[in-house]
Amino acid sequence: MTPAELHQDAIVIDGLIIAKWNRELFEDMRKGGLTAANCTVSVWEGFQATVDNIVKTDALMAESSDLVRPVRTTADIIRAKEEGKTGIIYGFQNAHAFEDQIGYVEIFKKLGVGIVQMCYNTQNLVGTGCYERDGGLSGFGREIVAEMNRVGIMCDLSHVGENTSREVIEASEKPVCYSHCLPSGLKEHPRNKSDEELRFIADNGGFVGVTMFTPFLRAGVDATVDDYVEAIEYVMNIVGEDAIGIGTDFTQGHDKQFFEWLTHDKGYARRLTNFGKIINPEGIRTIGEFPNLTEALLKRGMSERQVRKIMGENWVNVLKDVWGS
Amino acid sequence: MTPAELHQDAIVIDGLIIAKWNRELFEDMRKGGLTAANCTVSVWEGFQATVDNIVKTDALMAESSDLVRPVRTTADIIRAKEEGKTGIIYGFQNAHAFEDQIGYVEIFKKLGVGIVQMCYNTQNLVGTGCYERDGGLSGFGREIVAEMNRVGIMCDLSHVGENTSREVIEASEKPVCYSHCLPSGLKEHPRNKSDEELRFIADNGGFVGVTMFTPFLRAGVDATVDDYVEAIEYVMNIVGEDAIGIGTDFTQGHDKQFFEWLTHDKGYARRLTNFGKIINPEGIRTIGEFPNLTEALLKRGMSERQVRKIMGENWVNVLKDVWGS
Repeated sequence: MTPAELHQDAIVIDGLIIAKWNRELFEDMRKGGLTAANCTVSVWEGFQATVDNIVKTDALMAESSDLVRPVRTTADIIRAKEEGKTGIIYGFQNAHAFEDQIGYVEIFKKLGVGIVQMCYNTQNLVGTGCYERDGGLSGFGREIVAEMNRVGIMCDLSHVGENTSREVIEASEKPVCYSHCLPSGLKEHPRNKSDEELRFIADNGGFVGVTMFTPFLRAGVDATVDDYVEAIEYVMNIVGEDAIGIGTDFTQGHDKQFFEWLTHDKGYARRLTNFGKIINPEGIRTIGEFPNLTEALLKRGMSERQVRKIMGENWVNVLKDVWGS
Repeated sequence: MTPAELHQDAIVIDGLIIAKWNRELFEDMRKGGLTAANCTVSVWEGFQATVDNIVKTDALMAESSDLVRPVRTTADIIRAKEEGKTGIIYGFQNAHAFEDQIGYVEIFKKLGVGIVQMCYNTQNLVGTGCYERDGGLSGFGREIVAEMNRVGIMCDLSHVGENTSREVIEASEKPVCYSHCLPSGLKEHPRNKSDEELRFIADNGGFVGVTMFTPFLRAGVDATVDDYVEAIEYVMNIVGEDAIGIGTDFTQGHDKQFFEWLTHDKGYARRLTNFGKIINPEGIRTIGEFPNLTEALLKRGMSERQVRKIMGENWVNVLKDVWGS
């Protein structure tokens, strides 16, 4: 099997995409051979604005039902593969949309949300993000974790602080993930995870999706897909080949205003960070170039079996554990 | 001047009342000779529900304009005294109603809110309350404190955790208060403040209103107004006679359901505490019995000057510092 044939045949899952929602995105997902992706529908929005996002995105997906399908279960992922479509998993990057209502967790599960990051960079009612001092998981946060376990929404900890992350890992009775992170063993950054943190989540049955956001990669904006593969291999050597997957953090289609919103607390308050130039690694600048990643993994010397796991099968297994189907 | 005459002549301010809003309450305030009171219009409510509370309370007050008047400035307090009415200061016991919008601070100032407690018992976007582990003031919380300083809303720390309280005291450029607290020097309780905490707020230009909630008093449910006076004297010996006032925490008119709401996180989630029997100290069971407090302070040996300060003049001075008028 050539690299291209393997990519074509494999289940390919992207654990984090926060791209501009439109038909061009769905077309690029098909070009990239994506079986399914966790796509962000809420960051700073509250309950109602998030529902509004879902309403709009549902409509967009319905218009492009030749390209995409909603994913509620892992069977939907397999179905997407069979149909030659990309399955869309709705995800939040912030539990803020639950507001102060534990009951909203199940409401969003019913609306198709399968993965929720507990905090986005700063403190919310649940815990604290990775860009400020972190006092850990709150009492209310423990109730939210329990409810997410009950209804089957995966806890994501990528942008969550170290203390809150550790306590969510301990509190959750189902596997949790860093859906998109890089190792600080390759580059020190508040958003990157230490070897110890990566080992801790894996030792507790959790999962790690590796991202490729160049400001957090050792090679920075000059990175290529091979630097991305270096990071994947680094993480795999810590968490093992069954607890690792992809989580690109593709942002394609967004403008400067979107990144301004993203990098300010609540979307408008104090600035939290400034990414500078945002450019993905050469060879995987767009979702459509996804096959290059499979090729680069093989070139690195990984087996076909390992590549299939990393590219998507591991994600399916862990989602099945959390979703129950 | 007899104790009754002194009470009649003095400015009498209650720094915290969370009673059932109705005409009977206003009548009892007049009976008690109250010049003004900080009355709670929000605890667990979000923005809109709090605006709804204000709309309803505005209407109630308009119907009883023979008994009460709104207070926006300290001149309104003096006016209330001259008119023989009770001035109503709107207050929050939780910054939750600001939600994630710094701009809502000024909106509520315009609606008559003069005092806001940063947290109620648990974590919110600003910091953490006194009934759970406290990670301190958040970055967003610092922005809220600065905005409250700017528009002139006093920061209240009564139900706030020790770390968040210390950091609000340090961050605020205007005096802050414990509007209603008791000293843990007389009884250990998560809601009571240590000598060190009382000294710290006073050393930083802050203010302490002393409460009389019997579960937090040394004598418990058997307490009398003299036990309340003991606590006032204890606090005065630490903070001095210019930084102390009254903050009763009267809850009259409320039913069991209200206390259930109050003692659960967000009004419905996990139980935070259970007060047991709620009964105010003998001699000051109702707002109408307020004159007994003046008498008990005098009986304790305090001077008329001290009693006037404690009963209300100190509150007027510190509110003037914060409100600017």
